[in-house]
Amino acid sequence: MIDSVVDSKMADIISDLQTLIRQPSVSAKKQGLVECANLVASIMKKAGIHSEVLYLKDKSVPPIVYGEVRSRSNPNGKTLLFYNHYDVQPEEPLELWDSDPFSGRVEGNYVFGRGSADDKGELVTRIKAVEYMLQTTGDVPCNIRFIVEGEEETGSIHIEDYLKAYRDRLGCDGVIWEFGYVDAKDRPIVSLGMKGLLYVELVARGPSRDAHSSLAAVIENPAWRLVRALSSLRDATGKILIQDWYADVREFTQKELDTISAEPFDEQEFKKEYGIDRFVNNMQGVEINRAMVGGPTCNIAGLVSGYTGEGAKTVLPSTALAKIDFRLVPDMVPERQLGRLKDHLRRNGFGDIEVRLIHGEAAARTPVDHPFAKLVEQAAAETFGSTVVSVSSAGTGPMYSFVSVLGAPCVSIGSTFVFARIHSPNEFARIDLLNKTTKCMGRIVEKFARG
Amino acid sequence: MIDSVVDSKMADIISDLQTLIRQPSVSAKKQGLVECANLVASIMKKAGIHSEVLYLKDKSVPPIVYGEVRSRSNPNGKTLLFYNHYDVQPEEPLELWDSDPFSGRVEGNYVFGRGSADDKGELVTRIKAVEYMLQTTGDVPCNIRFIVEGEEETGSIHIEDYLKAYRDRLGCDGVIWEFGYVDAKDRPIVSLGMKGLLYVELVARGPSRDAHSSLAAVIENPAWRLVRALSSLRDATGKILIQDWYADVREFTQKELDTISAEPFDEQEFKKEYGIDRFVNNMQGVEINRAMVGGPTCNIAGLVSGYTGEGAKTVLPSTALAKIDFRLVPDMVPERQLGRLKDHLRRNGFGDIEVRLIHGEAAARTPVDHPFAKLVEQAAAETFGSTVVSVSSAGTGPMYSFVSVLGAPCVSIGSTFVFARIHSPNEFARIDLLNKTTKCMGRIVEKFARG
Repeated sequence: MIDSVVDSKMADIISDLQTLIRQPSVSAKKQGLVECANLVASIMKKAGIHSEVLYLKDKSVPPIVYGEVRSRSNPNGKTLLFYNHYDVQPEEPLELWDSDPFSGRVEGNYVFGRGSADDKGELVTRIKAVEYMLQTTGDVPCNIRFIVEGEEETGSIHIEDYLKAYRDRLGCDGVIWEFGYVDAKDRPIVSLGMKGLLYVELVARGPSRDAHSSLAAVIENPAWRLVRALSSLRDATGKILIQDWYADVREFTQKELDTISAEPFDEQEFKKEYGIDRFVNNMQGVEINRAMVGGPTCNIAGLVSGYTGEGAKTVLPSTALAKIDFRLVPDMVPERQLGRLKDHLRRNGFGDIEVRLIHGEAAARTPVDHPFAKLVEQAAAETFGSTVVSVSSAGTGPMYSFVSVLGAPCVSIGSTFVFARIHSPNEFARIDLLNKTTKCMGRIVEKFARG
Repeated sequence: MIDSVVDSKMADIISDLQTLIRQPSVSAKKQGLVECANLVASIMKKAGIHSEVLYLKDKSVPPIVYGEVRSRSNPNGKTLLFYNHYDVQPEEPLELWDSDPFSGRVEGNYVFGRGSADDKGELVTRIKAVEYMLQTTGDVPCNIRFIVEGEEETGSIHIEDYLKAYRDRLGCDGVIWEFGYVDAKDRPIVSLGMKGLLYVELVARGPSRDAHSSLAAVIENPAWRLVRALSSLRDATGKILIQDWYADVREFTQKELDTISAEPFDEQEFKKEYGIDRFVNNMQGVEINRAMVGGPTCNIAGLVSGYTGEGAKTVLPSTALAKIDFRLVPDMVPERQLGRLKDHLRRNGFGDIEVRLIHGEAAARTPVDHPFAKLVEQAAAETFGSTVVSVSSAGTGPMYSFVSVLGAPCVSIGSTFVFARIHSPNEFARIDLLNKTTKCMGRIVEKFARG
């Protein structure tokens, strides 16, 4: 048990987290990635973890950080793999941050900064748990490996290549996923799946250059074509209107349905947090849980055309662009869904709208009754007092790649408060949750070694 | 006749135009406006025109430049007023310019730069015509006045205040409007009207801050609400679907219809210039003319929501904004049309979408058979060999304010090639047209004094 060490070392945990936050590592802008990978490797080394920065053949791809500690007492036993990422979302919009997004400012129970929760906070709890275990006992009870990638926030486009290229080193019997939420009642969520993602750009083109808007009398505006095309994709209830969109959706099992029904969701707290007065399609109760766990979505992540500055520029834009992210569920295949989208546009007279695939990723789920899921649930319950099991996160990660390449079950557990503003201004980590989660990681390792 | 002087002075005309282009004066950004007004006043002085920079009581409003030459031989005769503007459109998108937008680069028959045509090129032809008339004869045959404003590109929001405040100085018997087009066959277009404008911003609001797009399963995205609201405004044929939108539209007279039918429009040339393969609603022939002259429009001038940079940010935006410009025709009243828009949104369940009025302006037309229109037509035909009469421009200007405050007829005539890329990158003035238009302005003054 490392609990008392963790309690005495909080300044050390916060300091390592600040060091990581202060190195901007925005994968969307290819900013500071190699620098951050080296930083992670050095923090691992300091912790007593053997670490290497590894590349693919194409050296322009951001590297992964590989970490390893072999158990002296049990070198031929099981191996636990921690998966994390050192990259972060863009910090924009800058004007909405109360302080520098890369300052790592501490105020009371909070560490603020881009990446403080997602995912540098999570990474620190895992490294430090191993460090304190080594400090306390001089050993770890099972083999431990780390893979820390640098492209998670842009869709983990090379993680499968890395898993295949370094399959020998990364072999394992269970994966602790890169993040985990703690709900509004401080219950950690043990999450057993992730949705997939199909991220596309739709581009409508009009005149060969921006024109004076008086010409709208005779020239069709591409923003109108885009607006009409978008309108055809989804109705006001959230239903996606693309033919056969839901055809491959796997039905929930009875055990999954039971777990979903048991998952608490505080509607009032959520509404207050996001300043909304209703849910999509006026959903209530268990409908909301089902949508989060298993509802395919079609979201406008970005929209731009024409003049977007101050004042009244009268322009008829030459192009209009929408960024759309579709969340997918098992067993939807990204490529097949992309084909359905293209067919839909063609059939509805929008064949001239270009569809650019930005990223596709399938969904994955570990069964609710898998022993690895059960042991993580126990460790979490022992540390936090109670826990919540979730059939799947509403978010996306490359879990399908881990399951298919490494053949290991994946379970999410972590320190991120559910309203920690990840991907938003003023993202934060809660210090009390960093403390508990570091302890929880220690318990997971112990139970895993014994199990 | 100043024709031979103009021919010998082209370097002088181009030099004054370059001087004006090199002073950026972007009203949307409040950039360089007072500087440009002072520059215009000094160029007028050099030309022998008495000039003053005049303000409203609110000194934060960009000034106008007032210019005056009294006729020595005919001081109590008629007065001609030239209306122009010294401000320009924003230069963005910068990356599409082949050279600095404020360089005034000359290449062959072209002067490139923001404002080279709209409206600094036009202004120069008028000042120089008066200058060469004074140089040649020591007098002008009628009284001449200038009003040069600095907010035309942001909707001339204070021109009516200026006209009222300085009504005594600005009294006149005819107004030469700030711009005029020359068509693809080098025929000047004598245009007798302008459309009105209703420019609004529509703002849809969702969660109180940008959220992770996985939450699209339960949180409504304001971009979807905006897209659906926009879809309800206009159909694919260009028809505006707002109730009673067309109720106040004045029918064309038979003379106007005849003039519209006679107006040439080279469909192939236009399509080639703008890189389009069809017109809105597949219009052909005289339908296109009617739409340009008298078709109310609903145009998306700007659209923005969420993440618009490179890469795949998965965000559910907090707000979505559209900039819409509606072109109005006589006798649509901007305030009344705004009310109809708001009613429409409310009735269709989009009452939560904020409507911000940016600018409203009514349309105006001078009758086809007005004597002032006829004399400008003759002067243009004599200078250019032929001319085209247009019942109304497709664009907007504060003509209604001039007609209602000064009670004078307004006629458009100028030097701007119809494909001169005004409001777009690589805007240019054609030197041959600056030459002819300067000559034409001399003829207009002579005919006006005699008439």
